Amino acid sequence: MPVPINLADKLKAVKRLWSPAIVARLNDYKIQVVKVKGEFVWHRHPETDELFLVLSGSLAVRLRDGEVVLSEGEMFVVPRGIEHCPSAEGECHLMLIEPAGTSNTGDASGPRTASEQEI
Amino acid sequence: MPVPINLADKLKAVKRLWSPAIVARLNDYKIQVVKVKGEFVWHRHPETDELFLVLSGSLAVRLRDGEVVLSEGEMFVVPRGIEHCPSAEGECHLMLIEPAGTSNTGDASGPRTASEQEI
Repeated sequence: MPVPINLADKLKAVKRLWSPAIVARLNDYKIQVVKVKGEFVWHRHPETDELFLVLSGSLAVRLRDGEVVLSEGEMFVVPRGIEHCPSAEGECHLMLIEPAGTSNTGDASGPRTASEQEI
Repeated sequence: MPVPINLADKLKAVKRLWSPAIVARLNDYKIQVVKVKGEFVWHRHPETDELFLVLSGSLAVRLRDGEVVLSEGEMFVVPRGIEHCPSAEGECHLMLIEPAGTSNTGDASGPRTASEQEI
């Protein structure tokens, strides 16, 4: 029998910040958890929307014309093509959903690009 | 500026059980919240997987060969084509993700089929 996917338990196995881990797949989408702290890089995903759901902590999704600040239990979908920069003052745990193959750094690439990993 | 989507707040506006409400869209997927209690109908979605994430309460996803019991913070993806019947002893609040146009009762249809609604 399949077992429930406990998001908090999965997050315990995540060691690196800003390195999403795939916990499940929904058709051709990847369901990920990620730990973040500090500021990421400005980037956009030209081909896809991206869903952020805060599981614990607080996340600011900076946009060029302002920012959306998310608390636990709050979500936001960054529309495709929109530049954004996620930022968290304290450690924040997220669920992140986007199509498999989507790079975490989008069109920016660079040293913070993470390879896809499953846990 | 866009605003955060607070899932608990959205759920306060949901009055009917087993009637999913769309709170956001991710490409051609619908992000929904739903209140459930009691047993639904056996059905399957021949064309798509379906993601259940428990936001509060507890949900049993019955399958023909057993069941997966989900608590708060736990999720499960029912694979496409697999018969299932969600069931909750007490009131349970869920996030439900699947492609827009997917019927809540899948191939079973019947009186519990809900029309798509946004809140």
